[in-house]
Amino acid sequence: MQILKNRILKDGLAVGTEILKVDSFLNHQVDVTLFELIGADFRTRFDDIAENVDKILTVEASGIAVAAFTARYFGSVPVVFAKKEQPSTMEGGYYFSEIMSFTKRKMSSIRIDKKFLQAGERCLIIDDFLAHGQAALGLVNLANQAGARILGGGFVIEKAFQGGAERLREKGIRVESLAVVEQIADGVITFAE
Amino acid sequence: MQILKNRILKDGLAVGTEILKVDSFLNHQVDVTLFELIGADFRTRFDDIAENVDKILTVEASGIAVAAFTARYFGSVPVVFAKKEQPSTMEGGYYFSEIMSFTKRKMSSIRIDKKFLQAGERCLIIDDFLAHGQAALGLVNLANQAGARILGGGFVIEKAFQGGAERLREKGIRVESLAVVEQIADGVITFAE
Repeated sequence: MQILKNRILKDGLAVGTEILKVDSFLNHQVDVTLFELIGADFRTRFDDIAENVDKILTVEASGIAVAAFTARYFGSVPVVFAKKEQPSTMEGGYYFSEIMSFTKRKMSSIRIDKKFLQAGERCLIIDDFLAHGQAALGLVNLANQAGARILGGGFVIEKAFQGGAERLREKGIRVESLAVVEQIADGVITFAE
Repeated sequence: MQILKNRILKDGLAVGTEILKVDSFLNHQVDVTLFELIGADFRTRFDDIAENVDKILTVEASGIAVAAFTARYFGSVPVVFAKKEQPSTMEGGYYFSEIMSFTKRKMSSIRIDKKFLQAGERCLIIDDFLAHGQAALGLVNLANQAGARILGGGFVIEKAFQGGAERLREKGIRVESLAVVEQIADGVITFAE
């Protein structure tokens, strides 16, 4: 997605060799015009399975707006965002998965209320970043617990050098990333294609 | 907003006298069709000042989708969501405010990077809930620190008996709530109007 890559080059900030800061348009300040184009591009990439998508899954917080804007292009299917803390009002059963955040260097956990993930549901994962793949693998784990199916994973930015796409594909999950970053070095961002 | 009130009565769950669970369409599973109507209704209510809005402010996580869908009806202005944790990549200056969460019975904090809140900017606060008003007052505090102006606050559901609207209006802030809940008791939800 060329407009996205241009925006990353213009406003993104490469920090060290691991971190790409895009908080001016993606995950702190949100450019909703860009998000509409992102949603439309996910639709194009998953067009062959779009009719089969029952639900879109993501993880709070920065995945929510991307997932919600994408849902508009998939027949406005429900979006479910996994929660990182157990809400005081989530008393019933929920699916739970522990995930490692390499950026924050700590374990965390995600959960989805059992009511919102049913056996047989066909789900698309949408998130802002695919790095080591821990959040997405956590969602796959939650879906497996529910007996739901993951049709694929769509990510705005993939950091290919952190291996998340490979880990998902090893589990048979199709991955579509709108911008694939091959390397971050000396403040320079290099795309894979 | 009648369609919202009907949805609350149909799918909302009154817990005790304080909590209204609407996680099936608002803050865990998201109904994007309803969110479009919500965005349009905020536009109608703030139509007289819509041209003046430079930015929409909210708090992660459940405010994000509401704010982003609302921005589409305000000329797609940027949305900034305050963060509850300091990201490892937020190293520069940021505005910071402590807030009390009555639902979770603990203090927490919100922050916005100084880059994304400028002196003179005219901001609209959009959030899913207005309860005691702590999150919204925290955003007002952040805006004050930046020298930005709050033109008003729009909330999907106001729990009037928890006093948040009064606290905001005491600070001269206009409040528009799409559904005002007057009472929760014995599992029954009563609207104010």
